[in-house]
Amino acid sequence: MRNIKLTIEYDGKEFNGWQKQPNKLNIQGTIETVISEITNEPVELIASGRTDAGVHALGQVANFKTNSKLPIEKFPIAINSKIKKSIIIKKAEEVEEDFHARYNCKKKTYRYIINNSEYGTAIYRNLEYCVPQKLDINEMKKAIKYFEGEHDFKAFKSSGTSSKSSVRTIYSANIFQEGEKIIIELTGNGFLYNMVRIISGTILEVGLGKIKTEEIPNIIEQKQREKAGKTLPAHALYLVSVEYK
Amino acid sequence: MRNIKLTIEYDGKEFNGWQKQPNKLNIQGTIETVISEITNEPVELIASGRTDAGVHALGQVANFKTNSKLPIEKFPIAINSKIKKSIIIKKAEEVEEDFHARYNCKKKTYRYIINNSEYGTAIYRNLEYCVPQKLDINEMKKAIKYFEGEHDFKAFKSSGTSSKSSVRTIYSANIFQEGEKIIIELTGNGFLYNMVRIISGTILEVGLGKIKTEEIPNIIEQKQREKAGKTLPAHALYLVSVEYK
Repeated sequence: MRNIKLTIEYDGKEFNGWQKQPNKLNIQGTIETVISEITNEPVELIASGRTDAGVHALGQVANFKTNSKLPIEKFPIAINSKIKKSIIIKKAEEVEEDFHARYNCKKKTYRYIINNSEYGTAIYRNLEYCVPQKLDINEMKKAIKYFEGEHDFKAFKSSGTSSKSSVRTIYSANIFQEGEKIIIELTGNGFLYNMVRIISGTILEVGLGKIKTEEIPNIIEQKQREKAGKTLPAHALYLVSVEYK
Repeated sequence: MRNIKLTIEYDGKEFNGWQKQPNKLNIQGTIETVISEITNEPVELIASGRTDAGVHALGQVANFKTNSKLPIEKFPIAINSKIKKSIIIKKAEEVEEDFHARYNCKKKTYRYIINNSEYGTAIYRNLEYCVPQKLDINEMKKAIKYFEGEHDFKAFKSSGTSSKSSVRTIYSANIFQEGEKIIIELTGNGFLYNMVRIISGTILEVGLGKIKTEEIPNIIEQKQREKAGKTLPAHALYLVSVEYK
């Protein structure tokens, strides 16, 4: 069977997350239904990982097996012409039979977007998280650097999933400013449940002066969820890209 | 009576344009209703100009007269706390009694955003106009410069309004690139009905090679609507700012 890797953009606002579930509009099921219509086969789409309700993706990656003879370059066109406008297949590639979008994933990059203007944003209200208070960006930039490297991120994980280990490596952690936007960007070998949203919430509290930059190493080390910041809302979180070897 | 000038952001997608009209959700009526609730008076909001259904504003300006004694800095907070999230009052200023948001307007800046990626955008589909074809940006940048200066823009106006003269001055016309976005920005002393969307449509045809850059002066001079490009859709147009003396 052919193995097809898709790169996918979606507007998370429209869905109850990636994962297939009955009676709730979800991204996986929506794409599977369209691919099945095109290939006349049942299909199972394996993503690099789920995204929660509301979370957007600029470059989610997923793969599926098929007997279809459709030329590889026709897949994006065929799927995009039938699917909701809130999902776009940006790329389709033929990959080796043993490629697995979740198991083979080496790196993921996430972005969290804070809108730091006095009255917030009407136009981007579903795409950015509004914080009107003055933020100390320099402290936020210093604080985020403590997250780089291999750490046990137990303090930055919501309960409700049973990952065996909470040790992960963050290769790069940065903050960019673009006008009123403060963009928190994390690249790592994997992320725990709500980890990006909790790290962003912690960094935000540094910006607000509620947590001191120097406390971050302690918060990581103590491994207690309640010492870290709040889980920021889903609608400002973006899965930017997924990398394989 | 006090005269209050407001700077307003709105998400045009939610409304049938600025202008008050019965049985259709509109921006003017929505804001007037909230101000009336706050001031306990009937109120009439005068904008720098209408925006059409679907058009966004980052900095629309409007003024209204009131007997209310509410401190000026409380107006944005009071209005924003009661109004739909798709409208934000960014600023309120007390101005002289004869200030009129339409008559005193000296300059307006509009932006039109084209998304020039192969498969378009899911996340920004209500905020950008998708053009998948390859565009010659250098020619677009040259072509737009012909629009600067005082011209009769009759060829770039939709019928349906009765402006006495179609002569306007464009102070600056530029194109910026930001990743996949091509941003057309025009600043002028006033714009005719659909003028920014028709100029953008003409510049787009230059990018597509359908109109040659050198033809632009002729198209302006001939004053025939059908020689210019198409009227691009409203959802990618932004009123960025309005300036007074």
